[in-house]
Amino acid sequence: MAVQKNMADINRQSLLLHKKHGGKLSVVCKVPLRNKHDLAVAYTPGVARVCEEIASDKSLAKTYTLKRNTVAVITDGSAVLGLGNIGALAALPVMEGKCALFKRFADIDAFPICLDTQDSEEIVDTIKRIAPVFGGINLEDIAAPRCFEIERRLREELDIPVLHDDQHGTAVVVLAALINSLKVKKLSKKRMKIVINGAGAAGTAVATLLASEGYNTIIVCDSRGAIYKERKKLEPHKQLLAKISNPRSYTGDLSGALRDADVFIGVSVKNILSPSMIKGMSDKPIIFALANPEPEIHPLLAKKAGASIVATGRSDFPNQINNVLAFPGIFRGALDTGVHAITATMLQKAAYRLAAIIPDPRPTKILPSPFEKGVVRAVSSAIQKKISL
Amino acid sequence: MAVQKNMADINRQSLLLHKKHGGKLSVVCKVPLRNKHDLAVAYTPGVARVCEEIASDKSLAKTYTLKRNTVAVITDGSAVLGLGNIGALAALPVMEGKCALFKRFADIDAFPICLDTQDSEEIVDTIKRIAPVFGGINLEDIAAPRCFEIERRLREELDIPVLHDDQHGTAVVVLAALINSLKVKKLSKKRMKIVINGAGAAGTAVATLLASEGYNTIIVCDSRGAIYKERKKLEPHKQLLAKISNPRSYTGDLSGALRDADVFIGVSVKNILSPSMIKGMSDKPIIFALANPEPEIHPLLAKKAGASIVATGRSDFPNQINNVLAFPGIFRGALDTGVHAITATMLQKAAYRLAAIIPDPRPTKILPSPFEKGVVRAVSSAIQKKISL
Repeated sequence: MAVQKNMADINRQSLLLHKKHGGKLSVVCKVPLRNKHDLAVAYTPGVARVCEEIASDKSLAKTYTLKRNTVAVITDGSAVLGLGNIGALAALPVMEGKCALFKRFADIDAFPICLDTQDSEEIVDTIKRIAPVFGGINLEDIAAPRCFEIERRLREELDIPVLHDDQHGTAVVVLAALINSLKVKKLSKKRMKIVINGAGAAGTAVATLLASEGYNTIIVCDSRGAIYKERKKLEPHKQLLAKISNPRSYTGDLSGALRDADVFIGVSVKNILSPSMIKGMSDKPIIFALANPEPEIHPLLAKKAGASIVATGRSDFPNQINNVLAFPGIFRGALDTGVHAITATMLQKAAYRLAAIIPDPRPTKILPSPFEKGVVRAVSSAIQKKISL
Repeated sequence: MAVQKNMADINRQSLLLHKKHGGKLSVVCKVPLRNKHDLAVAYTPGVARVCEEIASDKSLAKTYTLKRNTVAVITDGSAVLGLGNIGALAALPVMEGKCALFKRFADIDAFPICLDTQDSEEIVDTIKRIAPVFGGINLEDIAAPRCFEIERRLREELDIPVLHDDQHGTAVVVLAALINSLKVKKLSKKRMKIVINGAGAAGTAVATLLASEGYNTIIVCDSRGAIYKERKKLEPHKQLLAKISNPRSYTGDLSGALRDADVFIGVSVKNILSPSMIKGMSDKPIIFALANPEPEIHPLLAKKAGASIVATGRSDFPNQINNVLAFPGIFRGALDTGVHAITATMLQKAAYRLAAIIPDPRPTKILPSPFEKGVVRAVSSAIQKKISL
């Protein structure tokens, strides 16, 4: 009840804030424009010389224009927060918010682009055509499975970094949280049985990153139960999941998959995890209930059912697993080093460096807050052309 | 020689300025993000409420998002300044500059979009798809005749104002300059013979606006001479020009067209107007030599040949005819009043109100400087759903 009252209060404040300011972003001019001379230098005729330089060497756009520090936050409005397919225009407040976070945490100039199309081919074409201005592309809240194809195509066809944050930002922070959780419990990743509930953008990326990291007993469930190789009518991304997970081809539902599991990672829907399911897991399991705004199980219920470490996506409980720990640093590093792509290796390293910010993790402190110093620097340091741990 | 040295100096300063700042624009966050509570209000979970409001009533995007005050400055890089078809990326410094002027003069948040395509259909499709975020579209430096079709299509298919500034911004300022020039010379527009050299974006829009204003003896020339109805292989926009101009079907070249003309308006190339052509015009003619950076004739030469009023596109001579007198106010008015389109009537009114800022025009002062107070307000006041003079 207190939570509901609090939510109503936050909603009211949010509406007021957005109305007062007319959104959250402003575009400002950072050079002087006081008089004719300033105009001549910043605009015509002086600017023509700058254009000629770039026309003769395209790489100079990063020297002379906002491309140096600018990221596009692009959505088609098809999978926005917990709201679903609300379309381009209604997604704008979220995209503006994301851009605001880019500025606040990594001093990146980010601009929201909401696409009035949900056709993969049109989305790819449109983003390629508007790409010249940007130093990086952050795809946001695009529904699975379309998001996989769009990201793959853009990575192949553009020479700037492209990252679907719902996939990879989430995966980096989950891996960091898992690294520190195992440290708390003094466990080895080899022995872990991990169940991921949700096979959308986030679930798929989390499973892929964990598998590549050597977590070798993962079961991914969707609304039809466990994903396994022989399951019929598997979409392409689930066929890939079946290859890298569920080595014993478990074919049952979530409840059965969780039997003796050490870790539950929910990127699905509220209240799907029951206390009795937790009781069926191994002793004192790790529960990451990341559905937003309402988690797969309330953290207090999870604790009561025996969980040793509980994380959610919420800021009002301990251990918030939030993409904002990752994406500002990932793009800060990408812009600063000029890498053309963000690789799986870079993301793995970013997770380790993010985890290492907490030297002595405790059950209620497995991750830093985004406001802690060093978060962006730790993550960005992993985005290098050649890096060592 | 002094001018050349001065240009070299401005070029050098311009390169340094752009390099130092990494372009001219920055995207900033205008709401507080100091702590968890601020994040909850500006971003999740509070922002979801704002999304729902817009999903239920799209018009609320102008209440709650940056759409309220944001304009896209969009080019395909095909006709940039005097540089021509330098492509999307090399056009970016100009587009950033334009956005900076929007901010400086009208407090509009403008963002540059440089399109990596020069296909009309693709340009229209792309702009339609990225339109949701913007409150208006300023098309910029798109070559004729493509610019006409693109602007027409977008005006039909979008519900936000679309304006190709090279056309209409120029036309508004030229009309204002002409109104005050006639005031200086105590002449009536009915009797004027006007020759426009250049039938691209600017020339076409200037001719169209002047014709609709009752200037009934206009001859438009292109590189092949006068445009007249019977001329073969006329492009569609030149067929339209032939209908509204050249009533006596003059068929010769620029020099002949200028005989006894009262006004020359050049939107063409440097040094094409000779002193002897001016001497062939009527007594003490009006010369607007607007080619940039080098005008159709040097102002001192024009004066020496008998011109009474000379204007150029340059800030280092008297009477600068510069779009920056128009576009900030036009879009300020459009955003504030929520008009869906900017009509010819609004543009006419804007020119009259811009001209009226100078109550006593003199031969060397027919227009205000963009830095003078009242310019934006005068122009924006003309952009109303229903206006009276």
